[in-house]
Parts: sequence; C-alpha cells; structure tokens
Amino acid sequence: MSLIVQKYGGTSVGSTERIKNVARRVAKWKAAGHDVVVVVSAMSGETNRLIALAKEIQPHPDPRELDVVASTGEQVTIGLLCMALMEIGQKARSYTGGQVKVLTDNAYTKARITDIDDNGIRRDLANGYVVVVAGFQGVDAEGNITTLGRGGSDTSGVAFAAALKAEECQIYTDVDGVYTTDPRIEPDAQRLKTITFEEMLEMASLGSKVLQIRSVEFAGKYKVRLRVLSSLTPPDLPVAQEATSGTLITFEEDSDMEQALVAGVAFNRDEAKITILGVPDRPGIAYQILDPIALANIEVDVIVQNIGRDGMTDFSFTTHRNDLKKTLDILQNVCRHIGAREVLGDDRICKVGLVGVGMRSHVGVASKMFRALAEEGINIQMISTSEIKITVVIDEKYMELAVRVLHKTFDLDQPQRP
Amino acid sequence: MSLIVQKYGGTSVGSTERIKNVARRVAKWKAAGHDVVVVVSAMSGETNRLIALAKEIQPHPDPRELDVVASTGEQVTIGLLCMALMEIGQKARSYTGGQVKVLTDNAYTKARITDIDDNGIRRDLANGYVVVVAGFQGVDAEGNITTLGRGGSDTSGVAFAAALKAEECQIYTDVDGVYTTDPRIEPDAQRLKTITFEEMLEMASLGSKVLQIRSVEFAGKYKVRLRVLSSLTPPDLPVAQEATSGTLITFEEDSDMEQALVAGVAFNRDEAKITILGVPDRPGIAYQILDPIALANIEVDVIVQNIGRDGMTDFSFTTHRNDLKKTLDILQNVCRHIGAREVLGDDRICKVGLVGVGMRSHVGVASKMFRALAEEGINIQMISTSEIKITVVIDEKYMELAVRVLHKTFDLDQPQRP
Repeated sequence: MSLIVQKYGGTSVGSTERIKNVARRVAKWKAAGHDVVVVVSAMSGETNRLIALAKEIQPHPDPRELDVVASTGEQVTIGLLCMALMEIGQKARSYTGGQVKVLTDNAYTKARITDIDDNGIRRDLANGYVVVVAGFQGVDAEGNITTLGRGGSDTSGVAFAAALKAEECQIYTDVDGVYTTDPRIEPDAQRLKTITFEEMLEMASLGSKVLQIRSVEFAGKYKVRLRVLSSLTPPDLPVAQEATSGTLITFEEDSDMEQALVAGVAFNRDEAKITILGVPDRPGIAYQILDPIALANIEVDVIVQNIGRDGMTDFSFTTHRNDLKKTLDILQNVCRHIGAREVLGDDRICKVGLVGVGMRSHVGVASKMFRALAEEGINIQMISTSEIKITVVIDEKYMELAVRVLHKTFDLDQPQRP
Repeated sequence: MSLIVQKYGGTSVGSTERIKNVARRVAKWKAAGHDVVVVVSAMSGETNRLIALAKEIQPHPDPRELDVVASTGEQVTIGLLCMALMEIGQKARSYTGGQVKVLTDNAYTKARITDIDDNGIRRDLANGYVVVVAGFQGVDAEGNITTLGRGGSDTSGVAFAAALKAEECQIYTDVDGVYTTDPRIEPDAQRLKTITFEEMLEMASLGSKVLQIRSVEFAGKYKVRLRVLSSLTPPDLPVAQEATSGTLITFEEDSDMEQALVAGVAFNRDEAKITILGVPDRPGIAYQILDPIALANIEVDVIVQNIGRDGMTDFSFTTHRNDLKKTLDILQNVCRHIGAREVLGDDRICKVGLVGVGMRSHVGVASKMFRALAEEGINIQMISTSEIKITVVIDEKYMELAVRVLHKTFDLDQPQRP
C-alpha cells in the first residue's frame, strides 16, 4: 500500500463529464490498493473569468483581494470531484489550502509554500478516504488567502507529495509525456520514458510547456519522483499499464542506465536579439550595459560577448520580443555614455537548443550540431553553452528546419531510452 | 461615530457596475463618520449556477461538499467589493466566514450561527478599514465550511450586527421597504415607515418576501435594529435622507406611537386545503391525523377543527400545493383506520390575512373584515386567528379582490405611520 499524489490540471477537470472521468481514474488507483491525495486546478477558463471580473472593477486589482477571488476556482473543483467520487461509491473529503493548511509567505498572487500540515490528511487516508485538495492556494501566517501564481497547481502537487513523502507525484495533463521535441514540428518526435530533472529544466526554459519550472525545481529539491501522464487515456486503463505511462522525471542519474547523448530539441521564437557594436573592451562594461536593462525589469536570456580586438568588442543578448523597443530606447543612452558605436535590434530570430545530460561525458556534440546546421545552409548568429545544453540563435525562418535536422541527426526519431 | 452593518443581496451586487455602486454607497456612509461592516451575497445567479454544476455530478449532492462549492459565490463578491472600494480611495478588507470566524453548528446547507469572533473586525475598523464579510457561510468547530441555507445572508447581516452591537443593521434590497400589501395587486399600497417584529413575522409567513423569517427572529432575539431599504436609489443620496428611508423593523412597541389597527394585508396562493369529514370526535384524533403527515415531512399550516356534533366532527388543514397528492394518499389509510367518512382536497384556494399589533387592543377588527368580504360575495372557507393576525381561506379566484377590499376597508391606502 503506497501513497500517491495525483494532480489534474484545468483541462482535465474542464467540465462535469471530465470531472466524472477523473473520479473513475482516482477510484481505480484507490481500488488497486493505493492511498490517493488529489490536487486539482480550477476548471479551464474559470481563473481567467475571475481575473477578468476583477479587472472590470480595478484595472490593477489589489493582490490580497485578487487572491480571495481567484482561489474560488479550485475550491469549486474540489467539491465537485468529491461528489463525483462519492457518486461512484468512493469516500472522499475536500480541503481548501486554508483548511489543510498550506502555509505560505504573504507574497499575494505569487506566494511560496513554507509548510504543509499533513495531520488531517493522514487521518482521512487512514479512514479510507480519498483526499482532494485545492491546488494553487494557501494561507499566510495571519490566515490571509494566498495563491501561488499561474500554473501553481503543479507546485502544489509536488509540495503535497514532498510533505506526505509520497511514492510518486503524478501530473495528469493533456499531453502524454515529454517528447524529444514538439510533435507539431517533427511528427517523428518520440515520447521520453524518463528524463532527468536537469534536462527537464533546460527543456522547460526553452519552451516545452509541459510542467511549471518551479514545480520541477521543487521536486528536485525534495527528491520527489515526478511523472507526467495523460488524462485523456481511458479512465479504466489498467493501473499496471498507467503506472508506467507518460514520462518519469528522475532526480538522480541512474548509473545502470546508459544515457543517450541528447534528450531532446527545444526551441523558442519569443525572443529578439540586441547587438551593441564597437564597445570599448574594459572591465565593468557588461555591467554598464545590462544594469539599466535589469533596472527596467527586462529579462535577459542568452548573453554573448566575444573576445575584443583593438580595444573594442561586440556585445549581444536576447530579450523577450515585447521588450525589444524599450530595450533599444534604453541602450541609445547607454551607448552614448560608454562610447559604443551602434545598437542593432532584430526580432526575426529564434533559439534552438540541444538538451541532454549525456553531453557532459561526450565530446563532439557541438561540432556535430553545427555541421548539421551548416549542411542545410543555416547561419548561426549566436552560440551559448552550458553543461547539458547547447543553444544557438538563428534566423527564425529556419526554426522548423533546424529542429527537424537536429532531431534526425541525433537519432531522436528512434524509440527512446530506456 | 457609530457602527452600522449593511447587507447587500444578490441583485444589488449582480454585476461589476452594481458592485461599484455599492462601493460608492458604502464609502458615503464611511465618509459621514460611521464604521461600516458590509455583508454580501453571491452575485445573482451564481449560487444557482454552482448548485446546477453540483447536481450534474451528483443528483443529490453531498451536503459537506455542496457547501464547499456554494460558499465560493460570496467569496468572489467580497473580493470584488473590496477592490471597488479601494478603487475609489476607501481602505477595505475582506473576510470569508472561515476567516472571521463565523462559528456554526455542522448542519451543512442549513447551519446555524453559534458565535462570531469580532476581534479582527474591530481592529480593522479602528484602523479605518471598511470590513467586507461573506454572508451565508461559516465554519463548524472542526473547520468544515458550512452554509446557512438559501437567503441566509440576511441572517448573517443580523448576526454580525448583534455580535458587533451595531447601531443598525441595514438590509439593502431591490424593494424600498415593507408595504401594506403587494403593490402589484394594490397600486395604492403604502410603504410602512416602521413595522414591529411580530407584524413582520406574520407578514413574512404569509408571503411578503422582503426578509428571511429567520433573520427577523434573530433580530428580535438579539434586539437588533433592522432596516430594509433600497439599493436602487442613487448611491450618492445624502446619508441623512437614506438613514430614514425604507422600513424600520422595531423590536418593541413604541408606547409614544399611536398604533394603527392594521399594518398590512398578506396573502399566499401556494397552499391547498384538505378536509376530513365525519371524524369521530374523541381525544387524540388530531394527533392520529397529523402525525403521519409530519412523519412524511409535509408541513402543515392553518389547522381548523370545529366543535363536534353527534360525536362527529370535521377537520381541515392546509399544506403546500406540491404536497397535496402525497397528503391525500396518506390520509386514505388514516381515514380507514380512524373510521372517518371522507377526505377532500382542494388546491384552488388562497390565504388572505390581516396583520397588526393594534388588533390586540381593539375589538371588531374581525367582524369588520368578514363584513367587507361578505359585501363582495366572497365566501370564507376557513378562519384562523392569532393575537395579531386574522387569516381566512377563500377561493383563489377572489384573492386580488379580497386584498384590495381589505386594504381599502382598513384605510391602508392612506399615508402610513408614524
């Protein structure tokens, strides 16, 4: 008898019919001998509806009161799911974040969980109940309602799994796992049966929006076994089969397992490239360029500075496309101030990245990647590398081509590990 | 500086525009130097939407979980109203029933308030906040969410006024007070500036649906000054003018005030009449007839038994029309058992009642009432009287005529007391 935490997102509970399906799935796991704690999101569209109501009243809603309003979405789902479970004969009991209680700091709309009181839940589990808790929410030390920010239900799921020392945290979603790349771009993309946390983090930051990054970090920190799986399979799929479906995110490299070189190809076309030409090559120059950007709350991603020549260098970085104009405005001043020659902006670029823990111990991945791109006539504008990721910035018109070429080059269209 | 509790119903907060109007009204009272605690209902339609969702999943929703779902309606309103207050520069703070906390028994969907912790509210008021609390809800001793049942927000308003020893509890609604009768039937109906609790109770039970009966009983028990007034007047109506508008429900007879004979004419056409003919006139017979009805959870209203003749009597009572068939079915058996002659049912009847504390000290009200009806050829089928009410059951086709005749006979079309 093991304890599992299951988390169902907004689409999975998007209608009363879907909630009934979730109930059948949960009851099946319970019937198979598991203790089950279920964490749910608001029905899809509900959180947006509530926020829109708030904005009709206050264009920038007060954060404390916005959390009071927004947290009702999950509260409705927990009640409905418990009813659906009881309707098929499974005892169930719901808890809001405040009832559990899920203690957070008081950063309304983006609170962080500091503690979870698991006493009530353990008592109910011992009495044969399925426990259904509201994701995305908690209370601060004074009892004010807080929310974890958009997508925070994933984090709630992992936090409950950590607090309860669950055997596994199962995140049900509308995809059936993590893929080697987006199947809409490369139809031969393969589902990964396992992926490491580090790879998952790199995949997520490059746009594979399967899981909230924070929840993955959280899982890594507390060593929670995390599985992404589909809520669209038949609810009565045998437990033995469902238990190995989806993608398992592991928190340590399994040394018995031969690591493939590359786990997947990530990409992102939301960014723009800024280049400053003729920058005097002296200490502190990167700081002088980037500090005004940071002060304007603009997030910077890839940063590249090459070695200087004749006391001058070029400096490039990427930001979100929406911030391009603002960034260029700021840099005109900075440029004059530091005596740089020129600032150029380009929003027709994209990022494509190879991710894989296997890269650490293998040489030649980068050169193989660059050659594959060169053979297709794709010019590389920027390169940035980390331990387990190689990112290139290229013209956005080549994005799909580059993804497909790299996917094929690294044999990702073959059945995946293990 | 006095403390007032204002309660706004679902229609008054039925849209974001209306919530903004409520905010302006509340801020006006605060600006006039009052401490204000606001109790709100769910936006109109919201509670029904939530209950419908629940019934899609479970035809008879689990009461605990239904309360979890239904209580979200008010939670949304408190957040939105606080935002609207802040948007016009008034500090505000919301509390759910559980946050206050409003302690209730654990009778889900129809809980009763046992205690209200007013510490947090008093601290906020002292700091210049308007406090906005969710009506209709509380928590039991174990922290489970409870609701007070439909219309329970009125009761919440009165309960907060009692706990805070408020100067007045103002119930804002979509009518501007209690009338001598329904203006849709008698256009000359007059607004009562005051009405006693006893009269209000009799008016309400006969169908003047301005206030929930329970809230009136509660107000009487805790001597809360209760005023019904309109949320449809301009929000910036001067406080001095608004303070005397509507109808004040007083908890003791003001001896300085000359009591009018009759406060109003109430009526109800939801009932059916059941008559049992030829009942053996012996002790315990009323119990034998009514006990099976009560066991079937059927509510009985007017009961009339006349003196017997030749050892036989006739027994009549009224129930809700929806219960007529069920009642007749039960009585067929009872009839055989007790040896009565026949059971008759009639669902084409109505009740019309005169209400007024002045009746107590005046004779002749009943005979004047019966004469007025007789002059219009209206036959009286049943008569029932209490200290401050005379009720007659008549053919429903005469209902409007009877209401108008009595309204005129007792001069209710003239400007009202005081």
